[in-house]
Amino acid sequence: MTSQELTEQIFKKRSFLCVGLDTDLDKIPTYLLSEEDPVFSFNKAIIDATHEYCVAYKPNIAFYEAMGIKGWQALQKTIEYLHQEYPEIYTIADAKRGDIGNTSRMYAKAFLEDLNFDSITVAPYMGKDSVEPFLEFTNKHTILLALTSNEGAFDFQTLQTEGEELYKKVIKTSKGWKNAENLMYVVGATKAEFLGDIRKLIPENFLLVPGVGAQGGSLEEVCKYGMTKNVGLLVNSSRKIIYASDSSNFAEIAGAKAEALQQQMAQELDKLQ
Amino acid sequence: MTSQELTEQIFKKRSFLCVGLDTDLDKIPTYLLSEEDPVFSFNKAIIDATHEYCVAYKPNIAFYEAMGIKGWQALQKTIEYLHQEYPEIYTIADAKRGDIGNTSRMYAKAFLEDLNFDSITVAPYMGKDSVEPFLEFTNKHTILLALTSNEGAFDFQTLQTEGEELYKKVIKTSKGWKNAENLMYVVGATKAEFLGDIRKLIPENFLLVPGVGAQGGSLEEVCKYGMTKNVGLLVNSSRKIIYASDSSNFAEIAGAKAEALQQQMAQELDKLQ
Repeated sequence: MTSQELTEQIFKKRSFLCVGLDTDLDKIPTYLLSEEDPVFSFNKAIIDATHEYCVAYKPNIAFYEAMGIKGWQALQKTIEYLHQEYPEIYTIADAKRGDIGNTSRMYAKAFLEDLNFDSITVAPYMGKDSVEPFLEFTNKHTILLALTSNEGAFDFQTLQTEGEELYKKVIKTSKGWKNAENLMYVVGATKAEFLGDIRKLIPENFLLVPGVGAQGGSLEEVCKYGMTKNVGLLVNSSRKIIYASDSSNFAEIAGAKAEALQQQMAQELDKLQ
Repeated sequence: MTSQELTEQIFKKRSFLCVGLDTDLDKIPTYLLSEEDPVFSFNKAIIDATHEYCVAYKPNIAFYEAMGIKGWQALQKTIEYLHQEYPEIYTIADAKRGDIGNTSRMYAKAFLEDLNFDSITVAPYMGKDSVEPFLEFTNKHTILLALTSNEGAFDFQTLQTEGEELYKKVIKTSKGWKNAENLMYVVGATKAEFLGDIRKLIPENFLLVPGVGAQGGSLEEVCKYGMTKNVGLLVNSSRKIIYASDSSNFAEIAGAKAEALQQQMAQELDKLQ
């Protein structure tokens, strides 16, 4: 999916919500555990109940890998279900990969080609040749970690390096890489006050913003500093939506939580006019 | 496995060689492709032929993920085979993971608990709370990227940040994290001249050194600047060993290549006395 198509979906649905599928057997309703594939059953129910209110889903790959082969099967079924039932939905493999060129190429194949995700999150530490293999894919995005939502972001990302913070250096340098038009960036909602500066560097690129909800970030602040005339935001919520309830109507309640966020987002979109 | 047990194995085998299992269906001998699990058949043959000459194996997780469920099955069988047949061998999941705390915990479970690797490589960009979940495991190591072997290492890792290069900051800062005694560091063989400085910061920790062989690093240089009285080095070679031949005696030839490296390592170990 292109950035333009994604923007069209955002205006059509009046939502820039991404629902994080951090599906954990210890947290889903216990009655699902007797199903053949509890993780896929959970994801399917969540997707059916929330898809009207969001434009993207973001499976967190760690949660699937922690279940070994069964986890990969559930991931594969989830992405296939999304492609078949809701082809207008944008998909993000939250994998935070990055390695030397021939290895990054393998990760890119796994997620962007075989599983056919629209995008993948990538860590920048190993530099240009670790990221470019992901950027080669047409109509796909590479979502580079810039300023993450966690406390540890202040360990290295905000260090002063030759006159500016490391995360700014990451943004500026990556803009010069081959196929840089395929880049999006991760900026945590807990760091909304940094978004103004970031928008000066990348006025157009989409930002994937985690940390609204369980991690405490404010949607209003994120929009105030980060929204462009084409929106340029995907705001993720995971736990606050998918684990809002563990009763038999968990999906319905997740749908209501997603709708509430969509309503707030619609108000923010109204301010653009 | 503890660092001390690893050191004992190194002196016993007179080798600090790690063999990288970057197993790729496009590169293994074609006659193996008719086997039920060609990747495991290849790995088993390589392991049987090289285990006398090395102390560690390092499956590169990207290569297995690129094969989906079949890849995970082959990875699982490979690690189980190593545990059963050669329990004295140290194992490294070359995964370069790292995410917010609850997600890193899932990756740690996948690799250090379920697959029971002795160690995993981790990227430092997201800071302390992204790494500490890996460090919690007793008798396991977290191998943090410091200065990698690729060209892109010069994009961010060597930036001057508050008086010293970023990779030095990563090393110094990480030394203060909980259970930091479980840390090893990745330093590329192509950057051997940096090893002297690095040893001043971490005189004791093991270094995992990729880049000897296909990437052009020199074993002699690595030992000159990086070896301690307890050795403190695991030098990895992947492609130059496992793809030395694609004929029916590929394993034998891989064994010979590993033996040749082991012989050079034995000479380096002699210099310690």
